[in-house]
Amino acid sequence: MRMRGFRDRADVAEVLGLLAARLESLPEESIPLQEAAGRVLVADVVSDLAVPGFERAAMDGYALRGSETFGAGAYNPLEFEVVGEALPGQPFTDALRAAQAVRIMTGAPLPAGADAVLQAEAAQETSGRLHVTDAVAPGRNVGHCGEDIKAGEVILQAGRALRPQDLGVLASVGTAAVQVVRRPSVAVFVTGNELLPAGSRPEGYRIVDSNSIMLQALVGRDGGVTKVSQALADVRAEVRAALASSDADMLLISGGSSVGKEDLAPGVLAELGELSFHGMALRPASPAGVGFLMHRPVFLLPGNPVSCLCAYDFFAGPALRKLGGRSMDWPYRSCTLPLSRKIVSEVGRVDYVRVQIRDDQVEPLATSGAAILSSTTRADGFVIVPRDSEGYPPAEKVKVFLYD
Amino acid sequence: MRMRGFRDRADVAEVLGLLAARLESLPEESIPLQEAAGRVLVADVVSDLAVPGFERAAMDGYALRGSETFGAGAYNPLEFEVVGEALPGQPFTDALRAAQAVRIMTGAPLPAGADAVLQAEAAQETSGRLHVTDAVAPGRNVGHCGEDIKAGEVILQAGRALRPQDLGVLASVGTAAVQVVRRPSVAVFVTGNELLPAGSRPEGYRIVDSNSIMLQALVGRDGGVTKVSQALADVRAEVRAALASSDADMLLISGGSSVGKEDLAPGVLAELGELSFHGMALRPASPAGVGFLMHRPVFLLPGNPVSCLCAYDFFAGPALRKLGGRSMDWPYRSCTLPLSRKIVSEVGRVDYVRVQIRDDQVEPLATSGAAILSSTTRADGFVIVPRDSEGYPPAEKVKVFLYD
Repeated sequence: MRMRGFRDRADVAEVLGLLAARLESLPEESIPLQEAAGRVLVADVVSDLAVPGFERAAMDGYALRGSETFGAGAYNPLEFEVVGEALPGQPFTDALRAAQAVRIMTGAPLPAGADAVLQAEAAQETSGRLHVTDAVAPGRNVGHCGEDIKAGEVILQAGRALRPQDLGVLASVGTAAVQVVRRPSVAVFVTGNELLPAGSRPEGYRIVDSNSIMLQALVGRDGGVTKVSQALADVRAEVRAALASSDADMLLISGGSSVGKEDLAPGVLAELGELSFHGMALRPASPAGVGFLMHRPVFLLPGNPVSCLCAYDFFAGPALRKLGGRSMDWPYRSCTLPLSRKIVSEVGRVDYVRVQIRDDQVEPLATSGAAILSSTTRADGFVIVPRDSEGYPPAEKVKVFLYD
Repeated sequence: MRMRGFRDRADVAEVLGLLAARLESLPEESIPLQEAAGRVLVADVVSDLAVPGFERAAMDGYALRGSETFGAGAYNPLEFEVVGEALPGQPFTDALRAAQAVRIMTGAPLPAGADAVLQAEAAQETSGRLHVTDAVAPGRNVGHCGEDIKAGEVILQAGRALRPQDLGVLASVGTAAVQVVRRPSVAVFVTGNELLPAGSRPEGYRIVDSNSIMLQALVGRDGGVTKVSQALADVRAEVRAALASSDADMLLISGGSSVGKEDLAPGVLAELGELSFHGMALRPASPAGVGFLMHRPVFLLPGNPVSCLCAYDFFAGPALRKLGGRSMDWPYRSCTLPLSRKIVSEVGRVDYVRVQIRDDQVEPLATSGAAILSSTTRADGFVIVPRDSEGYPPAEKVKVFLYD
């Protein structure tokens, strides 16, 4: 039973650099537009048509020739003949002749011959005659062909995570399906003979697996799909078989990630594939590992739940987002506020410090060991102390990443 | 055909005030813990047990009596007998006697009689004898019963939107199911004879419905479930039947929300239920309405897609979040930056101004009519000009709500 810890610990930035260099977006898939909210485009989308595809009224009123209203005023009403009506999808089909007007609703096609829409307030209609008391310039109150989208225009760029309104724009140009980055599939393995399945009551000296539940939620947040979530006994052959047979795009193994005799995952990964880093200069997630199996990233996450969350968020989350075509940046909102108390850290390692925000001050949590998962539920967020820092004095302004 | 616009326009704050006063969280439902990420708790969760439920090792090393190591040093090694091993879930079952130690792994139960864990680096084990070269205080490196969660403690409060780590904490106290606010169901109706279903190609003077697709994505973002999405002809009986027969928690009707002769929804709602507000002092969503049908909120959204998005985000979104037990605040991240150009607004109405962020400056979009949905895809976000403001001069710092 080796119990002496890691000889060297990997630099967080170096690990992230390797992931950024080695991982690429997954291949595309075609999905119905209805299901595309939040998904990531694989390629620029070019519209092959214009929106609007025709000249149309931008307000309710009267379609006419603007130049014919010049000189109209309250004391000089000009008379037009109202020859019909245009509604959205129901055009007035004849061409307007001189001194004619058509009653028109917003969105209706402009009749041939008309070039402006006179607002209803600028005229009086009586028995088919329109008395115009204000002039309207040609082109006015008209939605022009292509003013929203031009044919041949790039409307959305590759890499875009689709907003609700993006789906609207795609629908308006006649899109039925979109090409998006396939959602990464993830296998979640938890090891530890002492673990009862989530949903059980703790019993004697057996505790309940909480990491698989948390990891599945994190995977969902980062755009992945948990393909399998499985408990493994601390038996080398079982860990080996699980890793070797998984065809998920990414593998997470919680527990058994350190250097003790029951820490099987690092050895198995080194044997089957590549253990690129084992032991991180990161508190509280130092007993973590990162490697590859058939080009797919594998993360060895500590069993201690705070360490597991920290290791996921530092390494696995960015990798998952990269596979899904997303940014590797932190997915949390942040704010910058002064510390109420100092934070002490050690030069040479990154610290992940849970904090609360009270009266616009950042308060590091007192009880915050790697096993105290409630520290991450009581906290509003966390502060990262970089490797080269000894920490921060009271009143120093720090950036807080917010859990919500 | 009435084409003269609204006589009065409702104040945005007054409309939101009514919604806040009239709407309540929906009743609870019980769901499996696995599906609870992001869902909202209906009640405080109290743990009926402590975590950990027993004293356990917080690091790998040797369990022993701390007081027996006092005086140990490199030149004064103290000898202990290693009498066994403790692993997580596999305790050492005898009680320790004087000068005995047990090899112990992180998470393993502390044997009876032991009160500290000596880190492996502070001792040498040879043939069952342990030579301790450093002292460890009683209680040191031990995870104490209840130090994460105490029995009887409120671990999560009512109204909490569950974080990934919250699910972990709930699992650790033996939770299988959680009581959460039921997801609000939403009926999305789009009206307009000119509309082709989303997924079609625009054809002649017929355009494609883009609002239903956008609204469904917005509903999903705000924690709702679209129960039905249906196109309605501009026929009074059809609009009436759709509203009267829907049993969704919230109704959205896009199009026909103004005062023209094809604007059927306001009249139908007034007849069947209550049309509380019709016409908003809000650009570009003035032809919007808010009302109630059998206590369920109904939103009349303009057909122009930008107006539809704006009316949803100002009124329907907050209402939906309130029904789901969430905050009515804007769901967008925000930042505060100086304007590159002035924004002009009219006193008496709220303006929703799409902007881009360029070189840390806020640039209002030039082309931004209510029909130009691409303005909301080209924009990075929007600025809200309040009712009593005439706008902002260049260089004024403004708050931008970010679409992404």
